[in-house]
Amino acid sequence: MQLDLTTFSSSILATTPETAEISMVVAAVLLSLVVIYLASKVGGEFSNRLGFPPVLGELVGGVIVGVSCLHLLVFPEGGAESSSSLLMNFLQTTAGLSPGAADEVFRTQSQVISVLAELGVIILLFEIGLESNLKDLMAVGTQATVVAVVGVVTPFAAGTAGLMVFFGVPAIAALFAGAALTATSIGITSRVLSELGCLNSKEGQIILGAAVIDDVLGIIVLAVVASLAKDGSVDVAKVVYLIISATCFLLGAIALGNVFNKSFVGVVEHLKTRGELVIPAFIFAFVMAYLAAAIQLEAILGAFAAGLVLEETDKRKELQKQVVPIADMLVPIFFVTVGAKTDLGVLNPAIPSNREGLTMAVFLIIVAILGKVVTGLSVYGQDKINRLAIGVGMIPRGEVGLVFLGIGASTGILSKPLEAAIIMMVILTTFLAPPLLRFVFPEPTPVAISEEELLVYGSAETPLVEEQGVQGE
Amino acid sequence: MQLDLTTFSSSILATTPETAEISMVVAAVLLSLVVIYLASKVGGEFSNRLGFPPVLGELVGGVIVGVSCLHLLVFPEGGAESSSSLLMNFLQTTAGLSPGAADEVFRTQSQVISVLAELGVIILLFEIGLESNLKDLMAVGTQATVVAVVGVVTPFAAGTAGLMVFFGVPAIAALFAGAALTATSIGITSRVLSELGCLNSKEGQIILGAAVIDDVLGIIVLAVVASLAKDGSVDVAKVVYLIISATCFLLGAIALGNVFNKSFVGVVEHLKTRGELVIPAFIFAFVMAYLAAAIQLEAILGAFAAGLVLEETDKRKELQKQVVPIADMLVPIFFVTVGAKTDLGVLNPAIPSNREGLTMAVFLIIVAILGKVVTGLSVYGQDKINRLAIGVGMIPRGEVGLVFLGIGASTGILSKPLEAAIIMMVILTTFLAPPLLRFVFPEPTPVAISEEELLVYGSAETPLVEEQGVQGE
Repeated sequence: MQLDLTTFSSSILATTPETAEISMVVAAVLLSLVVIYLASKVGGEFSNRLGFPPVLGELVGGVIVGVSCLHLLVFPEGGAESSSSLLMNFLQTTAGLSPGAADEVFRTQSQVISVLAELGVIILLFEIGLESNLKDLMAVGTQATVVAVVGVVTPFAAGTAGLMVFFGVPAIAALFAGAALTATSIGITSRVLSELGCLNSKEGQIILGAAVIDDVLGIIVLAVVASLAKDGSVDVAKVVYLIISATCFLLGAIALGNVFNKSFVGVVEHLKTRGELVIPAFIFAFVMAYLAAAIQLEAILGAFAAGLVLEETDKRKELQKQVVPIADMLVPIFFVTVGAKTDLGVLNPAIPSNREGLTMAVFLIIVAILGKVVTGLSVYGQDKINRLAIGVGMIPRGEVGLVFLGIGASTGILSKPLEAAIIMMVILTTFLAPPLLRFVFPEPTPVAISEEELLVYGSAETPLVEEQGVQGE
Repeated sequence: MQLDLTTFSSSILATTPETAEISMVVAAVLLSLVVIYLASKVGGEFSNRLGFPPVLGELVGGVIVGVSCLHLLVFPEGGAESSSSLLMNFLQTTAGLSPGAADEVFRTQSQVISVLAELGVIILLFEIGLESNLKDLMAVGTQATVVAVVGVVTPFAAGTAGLMVFFGVPAIAALFAGAALTATSIGITSRVLSELGCLNSKEGQIILGAAVIDDVLGIIVLAVVASLAKDGSVDVAKVVYLIISATCFLLGAIALGNVFNKSFVGVVEHLKTRGELVIPAFIFAFVMAYLAAAIQLEAILGAFAAGLVLEETDKRKELQKQVVPIADMLVPIFFVTVGAKTDLGVLNPAIPSNREGLTMAVFLIIVAILGKVVTGLSVYGQDKINRLAIGVGMIPRGEVGLVFLGIGASTGILSKPLEAAIIMMVILTTFLAPPLLRFVFPEPTPVAISEEELLVYGSAETPLVEEQGVQGE
């Protein structure tokens, strides 16, 4: 008897032409996008003024317009009904949406926004791939690789085990939270480092190299964990299969890519109508994303691989430039949606039953910080290096942690308190990193940074966008 | 008992978490986009090679992948079920989509693609607005205005009356078809004119001016007719209200825009995070689109008005540049979808019951051509002017005719044969215009076209994009 509303509205739908509702869905989607863009811009700019990364502001903006606060942007997965959505009420008042059709319009617009958010994260990973140079990755050497591997394994193992043992969290949910702990946000750290004039120090180079390798390892971990979540159980044979297939997919794509590169450029150079570069690039990226999804991995792994491959072509610069406005349009939908879907109310300390979520949040934050600080100790064979600084530099989770959270939440495997705990972990590690970094690094030495470095790593004026391609960094 | 499938699948949906299906919907959307982009690029390039406008190829590409032919991209509004969609069958084979979930995934991905197509046409009209200069519009003078008004009224009246009298088409459907006859595609004509070296002739200037004014009048007509379609009846009082409100909306937006302009630039100049220009512009465009939809007009009217307003700001050039890749990504979805949804099978002359649709198509094509040729006669006070050339220059309907068809089809008010007849009219007038124009204009005089003109009106090499902003022109 719980089905009444949905069944009722969809039977209305089946008798009346579905098309009649499309214009109302479009109106609802337009309004949602206005709310999302306002939240992302106000939040992002505010955060930027305060010296924090814009992506954090977009997330907080999402929390404010979402289920935790204003209820402008709510989703049926969170148990919300159309009557609890301020936006749907607004539509009924201003655009003459009938109450009978409201549930169906609400459901459809929520799905459209969710799919747009997914397209946003696919474009985000495509852009990150497009701006990660494979040769640079190889060049940062074994030092950075060791740091990256330790920095992924330590928090992942400690987080997963701790959640299972101390909090009785089911294996898959714990694995997801552990995976979210592995990320390192290169954007935030490199911006602070450049402000401190330490980008070119040995510490700075190791941090940046490790952060990039972290991204790649993290995406593989995510693909594996997300695939396990679809089954709902952990099977060792499947874990082995997934790790191998994810690695092979990435390596295979890169290897084939070196051949494909030339034909891509060849085709593009023969095209003479609009979109001659961006459309073939998206065809490739979406095919790769579909392939990755079809072999039980994640679509974003395919998009990332496509980006890596196209980065090797001569069309790289031009393509990067064209992808920027598209990413600007779609990526904020992802970050704001992640914030909007997270109910921070479950962490309200005034309610006794929330204590568990709160202690989980505290636990995750401690693991997140210690897990990366410990990583600094793994630097070998360097005498006078600041190991603490390296560890601290890898603390912020930033946008990559949010990608993990978003994918995890969309599988429905995370409990509400765990979801809120992860988002608190991402927010706090990102907030804490800049002051901590300033503390562990010595006084800023007034080293003249060359123009080229400014261009690559960004500065306060022209921030990280060129380097990392991450929304708002 | 007709509801079985929908009711069944939506009750499944209500019991299982909706979220579990999102990844399958995303996979289906990715595949649809790949099909759409392939159809648009192959069709567009092919058409361009043959000397026809790319948009025609995108449309034909859509027809080929759609319900008329390959069945890769079909929509439930057309009565298709998931089992008839090749794409859904492919998903079941390759991505492990279960047959039980197929209907729901099919329905959702169709809605997502339909909404993306609507966003595409909204962005298209925003871009057209952004590239129509108000002062230029005023400057082309009364001559062009008279031609435009006659060129809108003649085919509209003849088409609507003819369909109602000769074919017994209901008033609203006839009004829609009449409205689709009003459009003039500036892109196609101006390209041919520039090839003939006649862009700067008196005839060329009148044609271009009239075509731009046609766009504005056409959008008003469309907003009025589409609004009538929602009610399903023609009420004279409502027609008057709609014409007044559409005109007031456009004029009001422009008047207020002159004030708003400065604050827009002021806000944008203070923003320092990514998307600092495109996001505020889209907030404005989407708010305007929503407002237009809320007062019973069409969203595209609002987007067009927003474009007109922002064209007056200093940020125009920069904004145009950033909107191009976004339009390249979204606009083809609209054109291919229009083609894919049209069932040309209803015009197959081998089936006797199709004769009516065929004669309607022939009638519309004759009205489309004669209606514009007659318009040339309305040019007054010019002695040795080539009136025939002016009339012929306004024949191609191109992308604007398709916008009318797309909106008309989405209201569900057009019968299948009428829909197919309109699309045939758009295709044929667009195909016929280039050879006819070459015929009525005298031998190409080898006039040196200045560089600036080439930039403004495009040439065979760098076609119309800068001027008209129309996909693929």
